[in-house]
Amino acid sequence: MDLTKIEHPRVVKTMSIPQLKQLSADIRRFLIEKLSKTGGHIGPNLGVVELTIALHREFDSPKDKLIWDVGHQSYVHKILTGRAAEFDTLRQYKGLSGFPKRSESEHDVWETGHSSTSLSAAMGMAIARDLKGTDEYIVPIIGDGALTGGMALEALNHIGHEKTDMIVILNDNEMSIAPNVGALHNILGRLRTAGKYQWVKDELELLLKRIPAVGGKLAATAERLKDSLKYLLVSGVFFEELGFTYLGPVDGHDFDDLFENLRYAKKMKGPVLVHVITKKGKGYSPAENDKVGTWHGTGPYKIETGTFVKTKEAGPSWSALVSETVRRLARTDPRIVAITPAMPVGSKLEGFASEFPDRMFDVGIAEQHATTLAAGLATQGMKPFLAIYSTFLQRAYDQVVHDVCRQNLNVFFAIDRAGLVGADGETHQGVFDIAFLRHVPNLVLMMPKDENEGQHMVYTAIRYDGGPIAMRFPRGNGLGVPLDEELKEISIGTWEVLRDGSDAVILTFGTTISMALEAAEQLARDGVSVKVVNARFLKPMDEAMLHELLASRLPILTIEEAVLQGGFGSAVLEFAHDHGYHQAVIERMGIPDRFIEHGSVSELLREIGLTAAHVADRIKTIMPRKQKRA
Amino acid sequence: MDLTKIEHPRVVKTMSIPQLKQLSADIRRFLIEKLSKTGGHIGPNLGVVELTIALHREFDSPKDKLIWDVGHQSYVHKILTGRAAEFDTLRQYKGLSGFPKRSESEHDVWETGHSSTSLSAAMGMAIARDLKGTDEYIVPIIGDGALTGGMALEALNHIGHEKTDMIVILNDNEMSIAPNVGALHNILGRLRTAGKYQWVKDELELLLKRIPAVGGKLAATAERLKDSLKYLLVSGVFFEELGFTYLGPVDGHDFDDLFENLRYAKKMKGPVLVHVITKKGKGYSPAENDKVGTWHGTGPYKIETGTFVKTKEAGPSWSALVSETVRRLARTDPRIVAITPAMPVGSKLEGFASEFPDRMFDVGIAEQHATTLAAGLATQGMKPFLAIYSTFLQRAYDQVVHDVCRQNLNVFFAIDRAGLVGADGETHQGVFDIAFLRHVPNLVLMMPKDENEGQHMVYTAIRYDGGPIAMRFPRGNGLGVPLDEELKEISIGTWEVLRDGSDAVILTFGTTISMALEAAEQLARDGVSVKVVNARFLKPMDEAMLHELLASRLPILTIEEAVLQGGFGSAVLEFAHDHGYHQAVIERMGIPDRFIEHGSVSELLREIGLTAAHVADRIKTIMPRKQKRA
Ligand SMILES: [Mg+2]
Ligand SMILES: [Mg+2]
Repeated sequence: MDLTKIEHPRVVKTMSIPQLKQLSADIRRFLIEKLSKTGGHIGPNLGVVELTIALHREFDSPKDKLIWDVGHQSYVHKILTGRAAEFDTLRQYKGLSGFPKRSESEHDVWETGHSSTSLSAAMGMAIARDLKGTDEYIVPIIGDGALTGGMALEALNHIGHEKTDMIVILNDNEMSIAPNVGALHNILGRLRTAGKYQWVKDELELLLKRIPAVGGKLAATAERLKDSLKYLLVSGVFFEELGFTYLGPVDGHDFDDLFENLRYAKKMKGPVLVHVITKKGKGYSPAENDKVGTWHGTGPYKIETGTFVKTKEAGPSWSALVSETVRRLARTDPRIVAITPAMPVGSKLEGFASEFPDRMFDVGIAEQHATTLAAGLATQGMKPFLAIYSTFLQRAYDQVVHDVCRQNLNVFFAIDRAGLVGADGETHQGVFDIAFLRHVPNLVLMMPKDENEGQHMVYTAIRYDGGPIAMRFPRGNGLGVPLDEELKEISIGTWEVLRDGSDAVILTFGTTISMALEAAEQLARDGVSVKVVNARFLKPMDEAMLHELLASRLPILTIEEAVLQGGFGSAVLEFAHDHGYHQAVIERMGIPDRFIEHGSVSELLREIGLTAAHVADRIKTIMPRKQKRA
Repeated sequence: MDLTKIEHPRVVKTMSIPQLKQLSADIRRFLIEKLSKTGGHIGPNLGVVELTIALHREFDSPKDKLIWDVGHQSYVHKILTGRAAEFDTLRQYKGLSGFPKRSESEHDVWETGHSSTSLSAAMGMAIARDLKGTDEYIVPIIGDGALTGGMALEALNHIGHEKTDMIVILNDNEMSIAPNVGALHNILGRLRTAGKYQWVKDELELLLKRIPAVGGKLAATAERLKDSLKYLLVSGVFFEELGFTYLGPVDGHDFDDLFENLRYAKKMKGPVLVHVITKKGKGYSPAENDKVGTWHGTGPYKIETGTFVKTKEAGPSWSALVSETVRRLARTDPRIVAITPAMPVGSKLEGFASEFPDRMFDVGIAEQHATTLAAGLATQGMKPFLAIYSTFLQRAYDQVVHDVCRQNLNVFFAIDRAGLVGADGETHQGVFDIAFLRHVPNLVLMMPKDENEGQHMVYTAIRYDGGPIAMRFPRGNGLGVPLDEELKEISIGTWEVLRDGSDAVILTFGTTISMALEAAEQLARDGVSVKVVNARFLKPMDEAMLHELLASRLPILTIEEAVLQGGFGSAVLEFAHDHGYHQAVIERMGIPDRFIEHGSVSELLREIGLTAAHVADRIKTIMPRKQKRA
């Protein structure tokens, strides 16, 4: 059928199973084709086609609340809720978001991006329902990967205790992004192979009836056993122990099985967990056969071959540069241990993992544990390398403060995807890290100007034994500069002048250096001479150079691809005023005080006014070095 | 015995059981007496006397690693490791810390304060051991309350998966701080009453042998049952499912039972969980009979009567003021729901809970879940009131950013214990919240000058429907000002001039207002006229007033009992420079870039130079309004 004609999900309620199967095929074809051009989370969405249809058939959205954990598997939901026509704009600037978005549709009741939030949100919605006395179903859909996130476990514990009515759909595809890890995963594996719960329950009842009557202690044990059918080892005992009714496993690609179990769940009181087995990438063989996570989220690809459309990149991937440099150093430094919270592919740790399997720990989606695990290692003289995305490090803020920095432990934080990340949008922008790290005592925070400096910074971080040290680096690829053969240490807290100038100074670092240099070039043509400084250490800053610059009385412009409030520019202001340079002309450019949505990085930079042209303009406005107000 | 003579914990290795019992009695007497003067965490420590002795007997600290989760239960450990003589200085300025401290003793291998970190730390230490090929035991001691923290559950999941050798001591006193909540607690309750694991295992084996031979499906079920002894419902199935060997329950006050189980645990491979039942407050009846958590941590008390030595407080407790004002408003506003992460006593929510039992949720130690639960409630039009300490809100930074503020939801954060907290020291100082919240879009952040303004701010927060709003307030009691009968709204983003002046301006808020006014008074005697502004909204600031003040060209001093980097003073600097007031003389006072240890708040303020005298001096130095360098 023409999917763009679907206006409301109620359309699936009256279809026959053959029609639903046809719809599923149409949706798969649609997704494979559309995403081949836009890119997106193809694997997760192909896996939940039947499940999403079944949910919209059995529940009445938006009255009933479908809450998509992580959210990148909501494409089918978007199609069924009248947004198919917008898929050409998926993840594009001003286009359809790759995640649920409340402003897009009344059917999106909760916005996600970071994983493991759905159960807490569902609990809140369920409590509200119960207090208001309404009767909607609350249906969080959470993946097996997201379930290991601490906050999801906290929520399970609370929901099971309160016995709140809700239907948790556990979408188990045996993967988080990469293949799953953790004891919970092992539990799910046993459940998957154990057969149906209800069946076993009946059989066991029969079996127990055959136990001969016995006396004394033994009788008590038998009684206990009979009383405790629900704790049956062969099925969801883990979840039953937590207070949930376990249903499953359910074949997530079989409508009859899905309908039957969802209907059963709707009749039950208290929290129910429906364990649905799905196949990530179902219906598109390159994605279906993916064992490592390559097809979790992709750029454009050729449908026939399943090959990715390579955009020409100047330099190596930043993640690879960092991980491979650490790998090289690990050959001679046995202290190095690598840790990733479920991102071995994204962080390009495959090489490290294959060379040092004993020194590589994928802890699953568990950023807090990852960070404190690193701290524990460091107490014993190890040098943990924690590869973590900026946006996910937000989850471990307290562990950074309380466990790592307070104890001044030698942890190397490799903060990936720092700055704007583009298509993933507002939930994933890595723009807060400077502001949430700069005030933490003992931490060294730096960002390299290019991949060559990047590899030297990695070396510096590994060699540094003065406490925690963090290097942030952007998503994507380096500039294509030559890489020095020999690694060298960069003196902590030193900046470098990239271009000399006598009329104004730009202090910046990382990705925004190129726009600063470009602006300086433009300005030179207008006769304005601008000094550009690579302020590669955000903490500690280069105090000697700052004194020199401030003493020179040149106007200063700071630029950062990060939030302005409390960021690097603020650090420069603080320094100036703390040292009595009260008349210094200092202005700041960066990300304003609002969440930045999705789009290409260059579009977003243009939107917020971070381009070479804007920089050049700004320099001109601060050039007449005088106070403008009062 | 004279406990101050103990130099090394090996002393307990050669004692007889009667001697150890005598030692236990001596330690209890010592703790009850010492803490009656200094205050401290009496309940938790009285509960772990025998357990701590047993651990030091069976393990060789510091080679073997004893890791005390939360850490406030390490007093007995401190006594046994040669620190008894220092107990008169417990939690005093420059005295013995109330938590493990690596600088105090080689036996303190991990510093804690926030809960639930011990398992991750232990995992790190265990990995380091295994990579280095050494053979020490790794022994985290974690409470039943701390176990519900998400990061502890993340760690359990990872440890169980990796099968890492370690011995987890689960110190189960059925309390976290207040009585425990959560499904895990129910599980532990069943375990406590279920009898010994080993016993049941044997019995069941016998029972199963009696099951008659059967064919077909039934036989398969019987086989599965036999294969699965370790999943036995009556005992630690929850932990066994997660990959741990479960031992227990063990009587935590019975040396024989403790020794036997610890020895057994030492022989096992992989992770072992020893479930030890202890009695909080054991041996001191007021603490032993405490059912709500009053004796968890206390100030000085009279030993004979168990009555607390009341220090004369001017005003009501801040926590009570806030919670009781919300309670009052909840009578007419059915949207209000209260949430606490395990702090119903500390946050003085007893009254609210008894009046509105259906609208009060103690979620256990689970700050992340608490925050996103609030977000979920807010999506349904409710008005959640999240009572949370500043230091624990650090755990929920990502949930504040990603779930609450990004979705601009009406959550009221009541941030308790903001600023210096005194005796609990560096792990608990609430000094980072301004810096980690100020850069989050959509959030209103405020702090009242006294309890009367405080109650009006609570009212303002409840009435405000523009998104998230946070009110921070200090530990302890109000100033004793009269409370208005009628509550009134304070206009968001407005400051007030508390004292007029013509030579300089002080911008400050909350607790530091009194020192500003005192300094202004002192300065007035010297003929210096200082304007003092109650900058009660940290975000948004009072822009009209800022323009006016900056235009007046008076020098400005900002004061905050919070970290300077990225804090309120930085916000003022940012504002000035963003609006072209480049010649403004602005200086900042606050907490420097290091962790602040324990002591009374006044001692700590003196140490960091935050007193009226310092303020007066600083005003004098900025009075000659001219640039001092260059
Ligand atoms: Mg999955
Ligand atoms: Mg406890």
